Amino acid sequence: MYLRKVQYHETDKMGITHHSNYVKWMEEARVDYLDNIGLPYSTMESLGIASPLTEIAVKYKSPTTFGDSVQIDVSMREYDGVKLTVNYVMTNAQSGVTVAEAASKHCFLHNGRVISLKRSFPDIHERLNRQLANK
Amino acid sequence: MYLRKVQYHETDKMGITHHSNYVKWMEEARVDYLDNIGLPYSTMESLGIASPLTEIAVKYKSPTTFGDSVQIDVSMREYDGVKLTVNYVMTNAQSGVTVAEAASKHCFLHNGRVISLKRSFPDIHERLNRQLANK
Amino acid sequence: MYLRKVQYHETDKMGITHHSNYVKWMEEARVDYLDNIGLPYSTMESLGIASPLTEIAVKYKSPTTFGDSVQIDVSMREYDGVKLTVNYVMTNAQSGVTVAEAASKHCFLHNGRVISLKRSFPDIHERLNRQLANK
Amino acid sequence: MYLRKVQYHETDKMGITHHSNYVKWMEEARVDYLDNIGLPYSTMESLGIASPLTEIAVKYKSPTTFGDSVQIDVSMREYDGVKLTVNYVMTNAQSGVTVAEAASKHCFLHNGRVISLKRSFPDIHERLNRQLANK
Repeated sequence: MYLRKVQYHETDKMGITHHSNYVKWMEEARVDYLDNIGLPYSTMESLGIASPLTEIAVKYKSPTTFGDSVQIDVSMREYDGVKLTVNYVMTNAQSGVTVAEAASKHCFLHNGRVISLKRSFPDIHERLNRQLANK
Repeated sequence: MYLRKVQYHETDKMGITHHSNYVKWMEEARVDYLDNIGLPYSTMESLGIASPLTEIAVKYKSPTTFGDSVQIDVSMREYDGVKLTVNYVMTNAQSGVTVAEAASKHCFLHNGRVISLKRSFPDIHERLNRQLANK
Repeated sequence: MYLRKVQYHETDKMGITHHSNYVKWMEEARVDYLDNIGLPYSTMESLGIASPLTEIAVKYKSPTTFGDSVQIDVSMREYDGVKLTVNYVMTNAQSGVTVAEAASKHCFLHNGRVISLKRSFPDIHERLNRQLANK
Repeated sequence: MYLRKVQYHETDKMGITHHSNYVKWMEEARVDYLDNIGLPYSTMESLGIASPLTEIAVKYKSPTTFGDSVQIDVSMREYDGVKLTVNYVMTNAQSGVTVAEAASKHCFLHNGRVISLKRSFPDIHERLNRQLANK
């Protein structure tokens, strides 16, 4: 669970959070999630592993604005050793209203080339796979 | 067709354009498209009409970086008077490589309430509808 | 004291935090500071008061990057009822190194017109003035 | 001269361009200026030269918003082979009103270490120095 205050600089002239910021929040929540499951970005980077986005999808359910706090719940939806799909449910922490539902898809690169984590980094693969089972 | 140089401040530490910027570019290209078909945001706003995003989806095909120019081709995919789906094809203007394909879905608000453009603003509805036929 | 993790989307292709983000952090820290002294933005806004920036200055001392936490200490430097200068000292929370020193100047608007807080909102003036004495 | 349309995603809930964007525009205009004087970033980067910001200052004179175009005139104010100060005058292209005046200070790095351009890259030094004389 990642909690994020909406900042003034994230609002637009409609008076609400600009939709592009939810995509940044997804990254922040994903980084936090990987920290929590013992796979911090820094570890991945020191091993030469990157996990670039291949797809993103967001459904905007209800607007937020400056002063709101958004709770982001991250979970792994699909993972096969080569591709990963991460799910995000964003809730207004004050009102409990669902503000957005989203997903991101990732592949894995090692020194710039697409790899199978399962084959190249079985330990990391195991840790990710366990999260899938736990969900 | 909207042409957009990738800016230095849009890159990230992977050395490529951060994925959140493509969502901003879609908005820029959509604004430009609406200008070109005679429906500028300013006209919409002066009539009290807003067209907030309800969904967004991006498929990232190939990275871009500082120095690249991205051509964004906008088209209307679906429109029924109440909901609008806009399509985006993004191409590296130098190499011709497709860098991303994306779509955004919108509804229409008048003074904050969801409306049918077809019923409330038939002239604007006609203009949008014609774009659909033209595609 | 406002603590801020550097996010991945805030880095650039030099591998460090892009300098424009420090300006956003100043706003975040200022909002937090005003909350702490009992003058939240929401109160100001409900009274029709805005405090737009008239000047900003940042000295960049040492770079930061993804994974760093930045501590931002906010203080009031000058205030005369009409203009306000706010000071920011930003420190790498892990290493203790000063990363930036900055200042922002503000005027006050009421319903869009420049005002003297001292004359128009003496209670708010008093609260700000006390902070100056405390520093 | 660099011309920049204000984008919707650059506005905030006050209905005006968020002040942090002017700092991004300065970078865009500086990149464009260096292109125009025959010193593109790409050339600098291929030589291993970076010119990070050490200071930035902006005076906000008049707000802008979505739909405005901002003209940014860049000039070199001070340059001694080691440090560079760049000046920016931003004008509303429609109304001719000055919207902001700004300056950025830079040093030069070669492979991460501070250098004197004058000593290490006399050709580039000469080109920059000529701009100073021309102003």
